[in-house]
Amino acid sequence: MEELLNATAGDLAQLKYAVDTFYFLVCGALVMWMAAGFAMLEAGLVRAKNTTEILTKNIALYAIACTMYLLCGYYIMYSSDAGGVLPSLGALIGDENAVDAVLAGGEDAPYYSARSDFFFQVVFVATAMSIVSGAVAERMKLWAFLIFAVVMTGFIYPTSGYWTWGGGFLSEAGFSDFAGSGIVHMAGASAALAAVLVLGARKGKYGKNGEINAIPGANLPLATLGTFILWMGWFGFNGGSELKLSDVGEANAVAEVFVNTNAAAAGGVIAALIVARLWFRKADLTMALNGALAGLVAITADPLSPSALASTLIGAIGGALVVTAIVTLDKLRIDDPVGAISVHGVVGIWGLLAVPLNNADATFGAQLLGIVSIFGWVFVASLVVWLILKAVMGIRVSEEEEYEGVDLAECGMEAYPEFSGGKK
Amino acid sequence: MEELLNATAGDLAQLKYAVDTFYFLVCGALVMWMAAGFAMLEAGLVRAKNTTEILTKNIALYAIACTMYLLCGYYIMYSSDAGGVLPSLGALIGDENAVDAVLAGGEDAPYYSARSDFFFQVVFVATAMSIVSGAVAERMKLWAFLIFAVVMTGFIYPTSGYWTWGGGFLSEAGFSDFAGSGIVHMAGASAALAAVLVLGARKGKYGKNGEINAIPGANLPLATLGTFILWMGWFGFNGGSELKLSDVGEANAVAEVFVNTNAAAAGGVIAALIVARLWFRKADLTMALNGALAGLVAITADPLSPSALASTLIGAIGGALVVTAIVTLDKLRIDDPVGAISVHGVVGIWGLLAVPLNNADATFGAQLLGIVSIFGWVFVASLVVWLILKAVMGIRVSEEEEYEGVDLAECGMEAYPEFSGGKK
Amino acid sequence: MEELLNATAGDLAQLKYAVDTFYFLVCGALVMWMAAGFAMLEAGLVRAKNTTEILTKNIALYAIACTMYLLCGYYIMYSSDAGGVLPSLGALIGDENAVDAVLAGGEDAPYYSARSDFFFQVVFVATAMSIVSGAVAERMKLWAFLIFAVVMTGFIYPTSGYWTWGGGFLSEAGFSDFAGSGIVHMAGASAALAAVLVLGARKGKYGKNGEINAIPGANLPLATLGTFILWMGWFGFNGGSELKLSDVGEANAVAEVFVNTNAAAAGGVIAALIVARLWFRKADLTMALNGALAGLVAITADPLSPSALASTLIGAIGGALVVTAIVTLDKLRIDDPVGAISVHGVVGIWGLLAVPLNNADATFGAQLLGIVSIFGWVFVASLVVWLILKAVMGIRVSEEEEYEGVDLAECGMEAYPEFSGGKK
Repeated sequence: MEELLNATAGDLAQLKYAVDTFYFLVCGALVMWMAAGFAMLEAGLVRAKNTTEILTKNIALYAIACTMYLLCGYYIMYSSDAGGVLPSLGALIGDENAVDAVLAGGEDAPYYSARSDFFFQVVFVATAMSIVSGAVAERMKLWAFLIFAVVMTGFIYPTSGYWTWGGGFLSEAGFSDFAGSGIVHMAGASAALAAVLVLGARKGKYGKNGEINAIPGANLPLATLGTFILWMGWFGFNGGSELKLSDVGEANAVAEVFVNTNAAAAGGVIAALIVARLWFRKADLTMALNGALAGLVAITADPLSPSALASTLIGAIGGALVVTAIVTLDKLRIDDPVGAISVHGVVGIWGLLAVPLNNADATFGAQLLGIVSIFGWVFVASLVVWLILKAVMGIRVSEEEEYEGVDLAECGMEAYPEFSGGKK
Repeated sequence: MEELLNATAGDLAQLKYAVDTFYFLVCGALVMWMAAGFAMLEAGLVRAKNTTEILTKNIALYAIACTMYLLCGYYIMYSSDAGGVLPSLGALIGDENAVDAVLAGGEDAPYYSARSDFFFQVVFVATAMSIVSGAVAERMKLWAFLIFAVVMTGFIYPTSGYWTWGGGFLSEAGFSDFAGSGIVHMAGASAALAAVLVLGARKGKYGKNGEINAIPGANLPLATLGTFILWMGWFGFNGGSELKLSDVGEANAVAEVFVNTNAAAAGGVIAALIVARLWFRKADLTMALNGALAGLVAITADPLSPSALASTLIGAIGGALVVTAIVTLDKLRIDDPVGAISVHGVVGIWGLLAVPLNNADATFGAQLLGIVSIFGWVFVASLVVWLILKAVMGIRVSEEEEYEGVDLAECGMEAYPEFSGGKK
Repeated sequence: MEELLNATAGDLAQLKYAVDTFYFLVCGALVMWMAAGFAMLEAGLVRAKNTTEILTKNIALYAIACTMYLLCGYYIMYSSDAGGVLPSLGALIGDENAVDAVLAGGEDAPYYSARSDFFFQVVFVATAMSIVSGAVAERMKLWAFLIFAVVMTGFIYPTSGYWTWGGGFLSEAGFSDFAGSGIVHMAGASAALAAVLVLGARKGKYGKNGEINAIPGANLPLATLGTFILWMGWFGFNGGSELKLSDVGEANAVAEVFVNTNAAAAGGVIAALIVARLWFRKADLTMALNGALAGLVAITADPLSPSALASTLIGAIGGALVVTAIVTLDKLRIDDPVGAISVHGVVGIWGLLAVPLNNADATFGAQLLGIVSIFGWVFVASLVVWLILKAVMGIRVSEEEEYEGVDLAECGMEAYPEFSGGKK
């Protein structure tokens, strides 16, 4: 009987490990799906003549992120010294967990597959990089962008990622960022802001007399689809960040994260739609979409502490904020075709600052330290890389190529060869 | 040893709870994905000039449904008295389950997270509301629609939902509706029918001499994508409605639901395609898509009792029925641009009536009572709301706005600004 | 106490069964989603005038595959004699597992629902058939294609599937094909090749003086979406093929399959993009998409033995190979509008031959036997069916119908009635 009991207890430990691993893999697959969401969102919001290139960028950056994170990023982020600022260098992912280590139990026993952890983390890197892609749309050279993607996903993101999730100094300082409002979203937006400042605005976006010209996206159903994909994928993004599922407390936490994530997105849509209606007199679809994403970004820093109603409000404030931010950035002549800097940067900061409102373990001081550190590092490091790329190979297509559309110049093919005979 | 045994039994109870919760969350995420499906389906089946608005409606109604159900709908549906007709009012979702309650075991012990239940239920409400959106396409005022969405998702749907799933009088009368052919789909179609009757047909749809003009959808790949999304999401919709997974009997049941759901959709496609081929001499894609959805709606009332082959037949009858219903509604000059009333209403009734054929626990009497009660309530309540909205703010755009397209009038932007220079 | 122990052990066995069943169902739903991926990919790569038809084909073939596999295919594939070549005939899927059989334990005890196995398998058949659809695009008669789908999914695929996965002679010969580089992908490509040879090239594809005319796809965002859908679905395709999840070793294996599948696709994108850049001087998006799919096909034969880095390389070789294969097939005047034969056939063979490089249990001899057997059977059987169909009803639309587009001829409706006023 003792034998049966030990066998049963061992089997149970193994099954828990399997369930937590599966939960991680399912959430990871949902986050991978966000790559499609960004691709569709951005492809829908640019003009037809720049669509093939942005699709190419999106699939290529995902591939680069997966490869660079495998080669060195994962090691940098998760194998560096505790409490530090400078990461250690190293390559490739490590060994898988042995059965014995799981069965031994105790505090340090692994409770999910090391490979499932890598899978979950690697799709996060790709998310951060996807954010950059939209902001530089319609005028950047494809290969310069892809080289930046190599540096960003292999080194810049893993370094600041290490500061919190890898046990570095922000983690010790008490910075609190559950699923990455700052580590992923604001980081992506910081790199995007550096890029846009070096790159400049699209031709014709800002007139000589201060007027701002709207440049409508070519395919709004695609942009809407992208938003729904991101919304769905975010259940994996936030839901998986609980990292464990296999007991009552953890399962309740994961369920709460799902509910709050959904509630915040809903709040963001409603607020953005109402603000846009009052401000522009129209039910602006692109603002509603950005409102959904803003709600999601805002709740990502802490989808576990607030109630569902508070989550709706946090998302709603994000949704109102994003409309304001998009209009403001345009006034500052910072040309971000898809609103990525507003959605992921401005609202990411809001999300981080909202954490102490509901979570007694977080402090505004630590949150501010995190914001300044991550923004400072990613912005400056990115700026340096963009400036080097600009000096070495140029990062902007020629004026003629921009006029003709980057699709023909960079990819040699139109996205909709039969449809867009008309306006350019 | 006794200690280890008790710890093991407790751990196992917790893991079961975690697995059932996770199953619920995964199924819920799939149902949430159906919101994207409806958005793409409807956007594909309307004309280009009315696309932005229908996308806006779809994302906004989802957000409204999630918020209203959080505020009061969930309480109404699941906290009212057993056996009643009139629901209790109340607000917000309740407390999460404690570990001790789970470990106590017994009949009443909770076996999944209360938050996961809310998440699963809230995406159902959104589904019901999505059905309305398509039927009123191309001529309704956006904000009238959104106000209706507030009432429908906060009060009308939860009330009839309470009658069966919340333990109200239909539940006691033996009405059988596994995943909501009636409670969700027919309910949505009933609200849609009331809307269409108050709203009237699109200009140009029905000629003075009795002719019926086809108004083709602008983007059939989008409509097809929407159908595939719905098909996939339906595995969550029906599969999650078993509510439990964690033993052999339940797991087998969930697997059977997946197989039967898929089989019915397949049957629906084949039947609709063949009927359309014989009737119209063409392989009508939109009928094939509606056939898939009809198969899914038909099996939703009971995807557990029939064999896979019987499920294929139930779906096939649904597929044949939907073609007939669409043609018939057109003859009656009930203008439903996407066929929602036929798919979800007519076939929903078929699904409910098919239950007693395979399930000895169901009776035609109880099924008819359910059909009449739900249809009666939702249709009349919706009619009243639509008539009030018509009187107070108007529910139909002006003739000029309809001619120009509701996108410009309501949303101030075109969905495809570079493509549709041509026909209106 | 003994009673509690036995109850606990029994409950645990049931929960393991439930978890493995759920894992199967989730993976199956992801594979089902690949049907949408193929539909979008193919719809994006054909011209606007042939889009409705290819959408119709894709949803109809999925429905036919599900129905035929239910009626006879599953029986043929999994109920025939061990070690044989000729399958047994039989109909319908069998009984579900009883609780007692699970609780009895031991080597032969079922560890997941029989229905979940059927569900997982049936979506594989549909995948194989989807491959054919793209290769014959823009010129084949719809109903001839659908009749072929009946034979392929009900008989041809199940027969060669039985040889390996059903325990037939290839299984005994040691042929190793983890998730179906050969059994699914190369089989589909073999049927496609037979079809294309009987059917001939599209009008205008190959000029009289040996020139090859590019015929660009109408909607590249759709093609990109399709690729991302397939990439996501492949986690189910390969991840589910481990068939078990519920202990540490199995969970680690499933996680490794996810990581390697993702890595190979990433490698395929990067290699195809670089090769295309060097060869054509452009960042060719369609090659990047085919590169992703090539990486996925290549790793499918064994996503478990190689390291993540080796998987990246296997995928990269697939990506480079697919560019070469597409150019070569075009030189041979084998007209495959979406590159399906190159992606699934040529790269499928590469994937099978790569298995012995990382897996000591596989031999080149057995791999070659498998390649020759499956290709020989599916190609010859398909050729016979296509020739019979050609003789009896014709398989190619008239020249005029081809010029006008098969959409109007076959389906009576345009996919984009408002957009494509221009070029044909």
